[in-house]
Amino acid sequence: MSKKKAIVLIIMDGLGDRPSSKFNGKTPMESAYMPNMNKMARNSISGLMHPFREGVVCGSDTSHLSILGYDPEKYYTGRGPFEALGLGMKVEPGDIAFRANYATREGKTITDRRAGRIEKSTSQLSRGISFKVDDVEIQVASGVEHRAALLMKGSGLSDKVKDTDPHEAGKPYNDPDFVHEEGRKTSYILKNYMERARIILDSHPFNEELKKNGKLQANELLLRGAGMAPRLENFGKKYGMKAGYIIGIPMIKGLAEMIGMERINVEGMTGSVNTNYRGKIKAIADGIEKYEFILVNIKATDVAAHDRDPVLKREVMERIDEAMEPLSALKDRALLVFTGDHSTSSVSGEHTGDPVPIMFYTDGINKRESESFNEKSCGKTGFSLRGQNVMDYALQISERLEKYGA
Amino acid sequence: MSKKKAIVLIIMDGLGDRPSSKFNGKTPMESAYMPNMNKMARNSISGLMHPFREGVVCGSDTSHLSILGYDPEKYYTGRGPFEALGLGMKVEPGDIAFRANYATREGKTITDRRAGRIEKSTSQLSRGISFKVDDVEIQVASGVEHRAALLMKGSGLSDKVKDTDPHEAGKPYNDPDFVHEEGRKTSYILKNYMERARIILDSHPFNEELKKNGKLQANELLLRGAGMAPRLENFGKKYGMKAGYIIGIPMIKGLAEMIGMERINVEGMTGSVNTNYRGKIKAIADGIEKYEFILVNIKATDVAAHDRDPVLKREVMERIDEAMEPLSALKDRALLVFTGDHSTSSVSGEHTGDPVPIMFYTDGINKRESESFNEKSCGKTGFSLRGQNVMDYALQISERLEKYGA
Repeated sequence: MSKKKAIVLIIMDGLGDRPSSKFNGKTPMESAYMPNMNKMARNSISGLMHPFREGVVCGSDTSHLSILGYDPEKYYTGRGPFEALGLGMKVEPGDIAFRANYATREGKTITDRRAGRIEKSTSQLSRGISFKVDDVEIQVASGVEHRAALLMKGSGLSDKVKDTDPHEAGKPYNDPDFVHEEGRKTSYILKNYMERARIILDSHPFNEELKKNGKLQANELLLRGAGMAPRLENFGKKYGMKAGYIIGIPMIKGLAEMIGMERINVEGMTGSVNTNYRGKIKAIADGIEKYEFILVNIKATDVAAHDRDPVLKREVMERIDEAMEPLSALKDRALLVFTGDHSTSSVSGEHTGDPVPIMFYTDGINKRESESFNEKSCGKTGFSLRGQNVMDYALQISERLEKYGA
Repeated sequence: MSKKKAIVLIIMDGLGDRPSSKFNGKTPMESAYMPNMNKMARNSISGLMHPFREGVVCGSDTSHLSILGYDPEKYYTGRGPFEALGLGMKVEPGDIAFRANYATREGKTITDRRAGRIEKSTSQLSRGISFKVDDVEIQVASGVEHRAALLMKGSGLSDKVKDTDPHEAGKPYNDPDFVHEEGRKTSYILKNYMERARIILDSHPFNEELKKNGKLQANELLLRGAGMAPRLENFGKKYGMKAGYIIGIPMIKGLAEMIGMERINVEGMTGSVNTNYRGKIKAIADGIEKYEFILVNIKATDVAAHDRDPVLKREVMERIDEAMEPLSALKDRALLVFTGDHSTSSVSGEHTGDPVPIMFYTDGINKRESESFNEKSCGKTGFSLRGQNVMDYALQISERLEKYGA
């Protein structure tokens, strides 16, 4: 049999949107000039995709799990583990992870949940408050600005503890009380840890420096979103494909690492709206020679929508489309799947449960032509599927899926 | 209330297909001249059907289970039991069945997995190696050419044993080792059985005859696809309808028997491309006087696609369509459901996970008109459903489905 096609899954984060008054009631995708993707939509199996179940408002974590074929109801155990992975921490099944913020504390009150969005890297601070309590190893890693993650490794741990983050400035931090008996040990260890960490933070040279410059102290680490790292099957093994990823944002990168995908390097990839689109697209074209599956995440669409900037989102779409021009030439060697992980409304700035446009582009298929690649047009083809069926659908189109039965 | 309409479910095996270069990028269905089915598609609820879940590449066994309303994840226990049923064996829940091949063995090496595709019926051989080992009754039945099935009846049996089939010529046969502790007895019995069976095969007059004619010996029975026969609810009881079937191919016939459908005789029905289509159609028209449900399977479409012959598949479609002409007159007495069990690409010769055209044809419905009965046109109506919902949909159209709730 001839060589099977590679599969490239391009996820434009927060792709779907709602009508904007800025565009006479059109969405950013509808009003964007996207000759390349629109042309592909006319030669694809185009339709709409419900990331999880119809109507569920997915986060990027749950939707990526779902789309990659890992049932979020089974594997989604809170954002902590994904955040920790994204910061380059080695997360293993059974570890407990939290999302964390460096914050400013006065007495017991949190006066700024982000410590003034610290500009300087806090990794020095994070190293300072990474230590062992009893038999539990606690690691802190820094993200951008005030962001961080805390990871606990040890026996008998549980994610059944409260956030210490009050989720609002002007309130005191909470104690990490357990919410279920099985969280008793974890709660005890964390309380101990936080007491010692506060002492270290109060006198840390990093904070002395901030004080000297008249800036807010980063003297509290607020924890939220506790989760026990799930045991996820290796992606390459699950689907029998050598898999690589091109992803800028930490959380999804972390997920890709956790399921054993290999990193494909691209210069100038940032996860922001100024990311190097052309570099990504070039890396895809090169990558299909080496990998049978490539996962691509383009975050900029979501960033623009969260900033309630439909005009920027449209601009981002146009820049992405321009960069995608060379991809259409790959149709004889690859199946390109274009979609989003969820919809984000640039009107409200929030994720929605609207289905997301999707197209399976390659040659030799029964097309479900959409006039263009957007919410309305893709809805007209009548083709729709759930996130958890996307991998099967891609595998079967490229004749990589084994028969169920005989 | 007036007499409810009978339901006729006509499954054209491997119906859906992919674009062929022989037809300028059209599929066999798209390019076939099918005035009768196309006319019905314009007067039906037409759409596409995903035999199991979107993208899953079904075999005929899993898809028929699904379409008839038996969840394959619950009831599909390997192909063995279906194959055995199809060869006329009496398969009861708890029996263990294998697909089997007569093969040629030299020493321990399998030199031909099909013993040269024996032309003469092997039923004499199969009778010769049907005997009891301890308390387990072992039966072998012959299919066409080298094909056979082996059935084990007894207590404490399990399907947790390895194939003896090496799945490749030039390799030795395997021992039927158990893959799980519960397969210990079955493995022991089978090893004993195979030792005795080999002795019988080696000196059997059937093989003496083959030897004399310079042909390959059928001196090994290779086993594969062990499965424990599932307990399937009687179809007639499940749906409250007296059900009959018109099916040529063994496996699906076996399934129909297992769920208690009655055989409707048709002369000249072969399961091949030369089957008696008119006879089948006539039997349907007569059958709805006696049965409330009729399952029809037409295998020829799949045969042509497996042979990578889109032109033959188109011809088969045209012959089927011609024979179907009288069916449209039944619309006041019957609901006719036309679909396939899965798609088979006549480009690759393999099953695919593409959805299959479906139409529910009767009078008094809210039509979802499709211009013609094919993949593309049926996709445009926007109506789609999964195999497991086909029975409910047919029942509710014909007002046979009981209310869920009050």
